[in-house]
Amino acid sequence: MTERATLHQKNLEKIFNPQSVAIIGANQNKGTVPFDIFNGILSGDFNGVIYPVSPGKKNISVIKAYKYVLDIEDPVDLGIIVFPSSVAHMALEQCGQKGIKSVIIISAGFREVGGKGIERERKLLEIAQKYDISFIGPNCLGLINTDPNVRINASFARQMPAAGSIGFLSQSGALCTAVLDYAQAKGIGFSKFVSFGNKADISEVDLMYYLMRDEKTKVILLYLEEVSDGRALMKAAKDVIEQSGKPILIIKSGRTEEGASAAASHTGSLAGSDEICDAAFEQAGIIRCDHIEEMFNIATAFAYEPIPPSNRVAIITNAGGPGVLTTDTAIKEGLQLACFSEETSKVLKKALPNTANINNPVDVIGDATAERYEAAMEAAFQDSNVDGVFVILTPQSMTDIDIIAQKVVDVVQKYDKPVYTSFMGEADVASGIRILQQNQIPHYSLPESMSKAFAVTHQFGQYLKKAPAQRIDMAATDPLKAKEIIQKAIREGKTYLQEYEAIELLNAYGLPVSEGVLVTSEKEAGQMAQQIGFPAVMKIQSSDVLHKVDVGGVQLNVITEEDARRTYHSIISNVQERMPKAKIQGVFITRQIPKGEEVILGLKRDPSFGPVIMFGLGGIFVEIFKDVSFRVVPVTREEVLEMIKQVKAYEILAGARGRSRRDVEAIADAILKLSQLAIDHPQITELDINPLIVLEEGKGCFVADVKVLLTNELEFN
Amino acid sequence: MTERATLHQKNLEKIFNPQSVAIIGANQNKGTVPFDIFNGILSGDFNGVIYPVSPGKKNISVIKAYKYVLDIEDPVDLGIIVFPSSVAHMALEQCGQKGIKSVIIISAGFREVGGKGIERERKLLEIAQKYDISFIGPNCLGLINTDPNVRINASFARQMPAAGSIGFLSQSGALCTAVLDYAQAKGIGFSKFVSFGNKADISEVDLMYYLMRDEKTKVILLYLEEVSDGRALMKAAKDVIEQSGKPILIIKSGRTEEGASAAASHTGSLAGSDEICDAAFEQAGIIRCDHIEEMFNIATAFAYEPIPPSNRVAIITNAGGPGVLTTDTAIKEGLQLACFSEETSKVLKKALPNTANINNPVDVIGDATAERYEAAMEAAFQDSNVDGVFVILTPQSMTDIDIIAQKVVDVVQKYDKPVYTSFMGEADVASGIRILQQNQIPHYSLPESMSKAFAVTHQFGQYLKKAPAQRIDMAATDPLKAKEIIQKAIREGKTYLQEYEAIELLNAYGLPVSEGVLVTSEKEAGQMAQQIGFPAVMKIQSSDVLHKVDVGGVQLNVITEEDARRTYHSIISNVQERMPKAKIQGVFITRQIPKGEEVILGLKRDPSFGPVIMFGLGGIFVEIFKDVSFRVVPVTREEVLEMIKQVKAYEILAGARGRSRRDVEAIADAILKLSQLAIDHPQITELDINPLIVLEEGKGCFVADVKVLLTNELEFN
Repeated sequence: MTERATLHQKNLEKIFNPQSVAIIGANQNKGTVPFDIFNGILSGDFNGVIYPVSPGKKNISVIKAYKYVLDIEDPVDLGIIVFPSSVAHMALEQCGQKGIKSVIIISAGFREVGGKGIERERKLLEIAQKYDISFIGPNCLGLINTDPNVRINASFARQMPAAGSIGFLSQSGALCTAVLDYAQAKGIGFSKFVSFGNKADISEVDLMYYLMRDEKTKVILLYLEEVSDGRALMKAAKDVIEQSGKPILIIKSGRTEEGASAAASHTGSLAGSDEICDAAFEQAGIIRCDHIEEMFNIATAFAYEPIPPSNRVAIITNAGGPGVLTTDTAIKEGLQLACFSEETSKVLKKALPNTANINNPVDVIGDATAERYEAAMEAAFQDSNVDGVFVILTPQSMTDIDIIAQKVVDVVQKYDKPVYTSFMGEADVASGIRILQQNQIPHYSLPESMSKAFAVTHQFGQYLKKAPAQRIDMAATDPLKAKEIIQKAIREGKTYLQEYEAIELLNAYGLPVSEGVLVTSEKEAGQMAQQIGFPAVMKIQSSDVLHKVDVGGVQLNVITEEDARRTYHSIISNVQERMPKAKIQGVFITRQIPKGEEVILGLKRDPSFGPVIMFGLGGIFVEIFKDVSFRVVPVTREEVLEMIKQVKAYEILAGARGRSRRDVEAIADAILKLSQLAIDHPQITELDINPLIVLEEGKGCFVADVKVLLTNELEFN
Repeated sequence: MTERATLHQKNLEKIFNPQSVAIIGANQNKGTVPFDIFNGILSGDFNGVIYPVSPGKKNISVIKAYKYVLDIEDPVDLGIIVFPSSVAHMALEQCGQKGIKSVIIISAGFREVGGKGIERERKLLEIAQKYDISFIGPNCLGLINTDPNVRINASFARQMPAAGSIGFLSQSGALCTAVLDYAQAKGIGFSKFVSFGNKADISEVDLMYYLMRDEKTKVILLYLEEVSDGRALMKAAKDVIEQSGKPILIIKSGRTEEGASAAASHTGSLAGSDEICDAAFEQAGIIRCDHIEEMFNIATAFAYEPIPPSNRVAIITNAGGPGVLTTDTAIKEGLQLACFSEETSKVLKKALPNTANINNPVDVIGDATAERYEAAMEAAFQDSNVDGVFVILTPQSMTDIDIIAQKVVDVVQKYDKPVYTSFMGEADVASGIRILQQNQIPHYSLPESMSKAFAVTHQFGQYLKKAPAQRIDMAATDPLKAKEIIQKAIREGKTYLQEYEAIELLNAYGLPVSEGVLVTSEKEAGQMAQQIGFPAVMKIQSSDVLHKVDVGGVQLNVITEEDARRTYHSIISNVQERMPKAKIQGVFITRQIPKGEEVILGLKRDPSFGPVIMFGLGGIFVEIFKDVSFRVVPVTREEVLEMIKQVKAYEILAGARGRSRRDVEAIADAILKLSQLAIDHPQITELDINPLIVLEEGKGCFVADVKVLLTNELEFN
């Protein structure tokens, strides 16, 4: 953690738990942000002292006002700046002089407006660094801490939300009010609620680390519009999950905005940044949600219920239709319908009428009252084949809705298994739903949402159980040799490597290249071909020749020493004839690669997630089906194997329909080495191995062609 | 339309619009179905007379009761039977004697309980046929007609829903109460609401035709658990859409229940019945919904707003985040963000503050009041580049929610373009949402739902514009010849055709088979091969040989007359040696087919949709990517071309990445002929052309192999 990040963790303590707050720029004009902030804290029953700072005013509401923050006679924990952007830096400077280290800057008019605003934001950061201040914002809605020891609503939200175990962080301020309103209606409580705006100083990553340590927070929710530092976000998520087991749910908007412009290679053209974002989140254990409702559906499951050990659910319903629809989605989400034990079947048969369906989904029939629901729930919870229970209710004229809701509450308390509910309808079932919500039973207006929430919590449980990352063996790599090749090329002003250089580079990292050598005479060609072995392939090497085949610069299937000599001559003549001015480095001879399945490995750099690797099968699979997978490096062997199996065409490698099984382990080795190459040498901007020829199981794979693009910077920090 | 279907249409008039109703089996015991039904009509302010029939009672509530329906002195339009299933048939018999033609049977205990119930249901139908009665049910919840001239709630729903233009038909009774409750809370009204239960007599198809003619109904919604007659459903949907332009929305549950058991051929194993259901619905113009919320989201769009002529939307929001999320889903759903005219940009620039985003999505900023929303809406509606407007609101402290809602209502009335709204949150925005709902402005709690609803209405508009089905030219077919081949095989007890028979069959329908002939001597082989042309292929024909290659029964690349004679001899010897007892019909000689792209055409019969055709590219495309498309026959050329283009691998046929373009029109011809063959000859249960070799554009295609499975029934009705 950087020095400043460590400082933020310290200063965040007083941002969230201040005992004294100066509201700098407070006023009494209703309908303005300064008033709303002041009023929010005042009416929110804050457990501390407020000092309004308002030049020219004697008091704000009934509270004495100060001209400057420096005039306040007592120490101040937290400064909240609501002045216009043009003077915010002066207020921050005075906070520094006063010794206030924790600040929230609500004011807008900074980076988001461009021009002068960018300069103003830079100035804020400068002052903060000078005084070791940490600040949230600018251009934010503020924050809320529901902890009864603090109770601060330093935001322009209309009211203080209920206390709960969900921590919510949002880049969008305007969305916050909608979220608070939504949550209030559903009885969902928050531990901390933060609008972090432009994140000029304290970022979502700092806030995630804070919530990791916060005892009141069980689940972390994040609404993001841009991932500015993808790798830091991934690391924070991994740390939070590993160290605290808290799930992280993120909505990342801008799915259809294409990322960096289409690059020259396949990797570039396929890697829409949103796909990379998906892959990166998955790698880091982050749960990506599509919208607010889905996010809270899943968040309440985590907040209220235990994580299920396995995926077998029992469905109890008083209406067949919704039971079937829920079964459909359960199967689609990868859940299983629990198979009841004989004992359970016996109990259900006894407790339910003859016409009831005692198999899963259990239909207690439209005229069911609370007794039947209770009997079915008890039986399901007691069955060791059941990992969780879905309770569905439709309001028939004889349904005692509230009593059934209370029964759910009562029964659930006796067991350590999750229960999810869906009381369908609205007005008639409202009071029943309220009973469930007040007792922290997850409730979903669509029964189908239960399946999604259960599946996500179950998958997260599986992710927590995963073995920690395995390291790969780096003995086979020669980073110095690789560095030498790259730096030589950059010094020569090249933006890509010659084939023989690229192969040398891969060879330095133990990637399976066909042994090869650059020769510069007929004689040498003969000797080296003999040494390498036949059949051989010979190719012209010239920094002026891009399309070797077009100038007669490639010969396959060279079979004798004599043939190699003759071929050397003919290749050189061909090229000289067609491109008389081409500077020729020589002819590259390699052993011809046997036939096998063609796959593609790619490497590119994403502006926010850094080096990313791509895998896919060659030809139509990549070109037409876009059947590729991505991972952010570094990767574990396990992740690489998952990545390979993730493409649909994997079945071809696995030996589908009478094909021979291919050497998947060898592909994984190659990807791991490529990943290490990407980490060690940031000068490589893109790398495409296309194709990698994969032989039968145990027989390895070979790089048949490789392209490497470079930056022009020699050194990176 | 059958005689009985015509009768149903007549009798449905009095089912929906009775002036007098007998409730047969009424009682006064609260919490029972008979009481709820009686009470529903009584308290629903029915515009007619009720006659309770209740042996042993003098009155029900304050109304005189009758022992038998026959005792009623006046004519009765509608009989509602609520007696137990054991005596329901007697009540129906008496209805017949009384001359009541329109009946609803609420009672349960029929087909759904199996055993005796099936027999009871059959009896009901028998009685109905005897007396020309039409009935809804049994095992249903009844129906509701909100028409102020009728106002009947003959159901056990808790209360009468609001009047509206949505007609709702449900196979599940229990779901109905949840739907009514949901709709009521959202202010959604219904024209007709029917639970049709076991559909022993009147089916969903009859009800669809009724709603087609019903002036109060603009949109038809259907919840189905089983499609018993898929073709009738498709025909009804097509008729309704063509004749009335009313959209049909269906939820069909049971997506994951696999259909008929896996069949031998590719077609069989790929065609999960749910995929066929998807294809069939799409062909018929039916909109398939996944759940109740989606269904009503789309239904209100149709009920309240015009169908947009094109897909360009304007988004107006006071919060950036939801604007971005909505843009994402709009693009994903195939919509375009409208490009504003210069005039619009000018107006927006003037009306909105400097910091506002005047491009689409328009951000009127968090502190926007009704004036800004009004200005932005007016500008968007007036712009001819805009086909519809999405209005998003989040409740900031300065947002005048109700006034903005009223402005939406006022502005919209002036224009003939759809507007959809999303006021995000719950409690704070509730009164604003109510204003929208009362004024029939579609409102969605998730802004993303607006995109889906808009896309669906737009697509339906496009479907309405489609040219009526084109007929194919049947001159080239020889159905009698085909019938002869099929019947001969069935008479011989075969369940599949020999290759030469299958090829003759395809030839009779003008499918592009390679010319071929069955020869039975060396001499004939030489002559015929000469006549057909070289290179030729020769194959053994024997009903005892399944795997021709394995017994040395196939020879490719026969190049001279002499070669053909020699090959005849060697094939016969090979087979005789390996299978001495095999009965040999001869050797089949065809012209060898040139190389081309391989595609697969399949034909199978679905238990509810009948003959279905399949298309896909050969090899891995079908085997691994399951990249196939289905259509229910008959099909138009346009549908076939769509079907071909629907598979992802189509790009290969279209000449992607430097490949040559293939003869797609020839494939379409072949599929159309196959479709006709399927219609004309129901004895074909499965047919696989695998592969069909497709040559370059304009050069046609050839059947390389074909398998035909038959039933053992000679004649079909």
